[in-house]
Amino acid sequence: MLDVPFPPFCAFLGALGLLCVAMVGTWCQHWRGGFSLDGSSRTFNWHPVLMVTGLVVLYGAAALVYRIPNTWSGPKLPWKVLHGSLALGAFVLTVLGLAAVFCFHNAQGTPNMYSLHSWMGLATVLLFSCQWAAGFGAFLLPWAPTWLRAFYKPIHVFFGSAILMLSVASCASGLNEKLFFSLKNGTTQYKLLPAEAVFANTLGLLILIFGVLVVAALARPSWKRPDSDSLDSRQNPPLDPMPRAM
Amino acid sequence: MLDVPFPPFCAFLGALGLLCVAMVGTWCQHWRGGFSLDGSSRTFNWHPVLMVTGLVVLYGAAALVYRIPNTWSGPKLPWKVLHGSLALGAFVLTVLGLAAVFCFHNAQGTPNMYSLHSWMGLATVLLFSCQWAAGFGAFLLPWAPTWLRAFYKPIHVFFGSAILMLSVASCASGLNEKLFFSLKNGTTQYKLLPAEAVFANTLGLLILIFGVLVVAALARPSWKRPDSDSLDSRQNPPLDPMPRAM
Repeated sequence: MLDVPFPPFCAFLGALGLLCVAMVGTWCQHWRGGFSLDGSSRTFNWHPVLMVTGLVVLYGAAALVYRIPNTWSGPKLPWKVLHGSLALGAFVLTVLGLAAVFCFHNAQGTPNMYSLHSWMGLATVLLFSCQWAAGFGAFLLPWAPTWLRAFYKPIHVFFGSAILMLSVASCASGLNEKLFFSLKNGTTQYKLLPAEAVFANTLGLLILIFGVLVVAALARPSWKRPDSDSLDSRQNPPLDPMPRAM
Repeated sequence: MLDVPFPPFCAFLGALGLLCVAMVGTWCQHWRGGFSLDGSSRTFNWHPVLMVTGLVVLYGAAALVYRIPNTWSGPKLPWKVLHGSLALGAFVLTVLGLAAVFCFHNAQGTPNMYSLHSWMGLATVLLFSCQWAAGFGAFLLPWAPTWLRAFYKPIHVFFGSAILMLSVASCASGLNEKLFFSLKNGTTQYKLLPAEAVFANTLGLLILIFGVLVVAALARPSWKRPDSDSLDSRQNPPLDPMPRAM
């Protein structure tokens, strides 16, 4: 947007992401009873914490790796490994977050996968799993042909932003739903806007701001990695005459 | 993403947008009791219809005007007027949609503005109002200096996509919330996934897909209007030596 260099913007995004993680943890610990693995609502509490940490913040960090100017020259393989590892970490947290909510529902006899939030969330995670597997196969395994990488790269880039947009929308709808479920008795009714509601609503807005800023950073032309080749001798044979797509 | 020209992609988006409008209307008419202005839930029903129509579909159409190749040459003023008019239409529908939900809440004695959905939605509408007013002042009024237009254009473009992301997230959380409110008795419980739930969940996913595709279309470099000047004689004096920013 304005003439801001990427590093301070990235530091701001990092601080915002950490704030989101700290706030979702504080919300679940302070107002929702903390964490356990016994199938109670304290098992459910892992769900928002792991989803915000994995599917939003760590995912956002993975998506932004190629916007670091250091990745634009020199061997590309270490950055590919970092990008793939951060995304894998995000995916593992996401799957654990799904396991938490399924475990809670099953223990309580509640059906899974009926709400729009659950449909959005599962669609997001399924897209993410395809994205990771296809990215690994196309960009990290050494035998993918150059034409396939060139063909798939814009698709991977498109779904990178699309999945983040879906994940922040899923988080916002999930937070909203959970607050309606939890704040319905006595003086803590959601519509009376107790401190928990103000805190969690603010968290929801911060998650949305984080997602919008990451998607905007990904779309900014001057922060994109130039498409020209770089030394990637560990993956390309020296005589490969074709430039790498990613 | 792939080598798709803009016009057929735009036609697909138009069809998808119309489908979303038709589906939200069908949902409110067929399952939620239709429409009225008496302060009942039938007054509320204007809220989702007007928000999806205004803040998502018509807003998306306004945002995409400058991706039509015809806008890239010749006088720019007619396209500016079209862009501003579509956005104004979207804004009017949005304000009417807000009025519907405030009217419903006030008639029912329900507080306004306590849920995360309402915070997200109001933040989106406030940003949209600032965006429209600033865009009108900078790009349609003839006395804005060129340096101001050049400075403000990337900000306007950034918030154009950001507001759409926030609006689809708001719509998804609102649909999710309304389904939990409405489907809670007897055989129509949300968790039993009745036909209405499948229909409205599908609508929610289609709204998200529409938003993601519009934001992706806006970000695609080859579909962006080139920054070079065009004839805009009705706004620029003939001797103005500076290229127009937008």
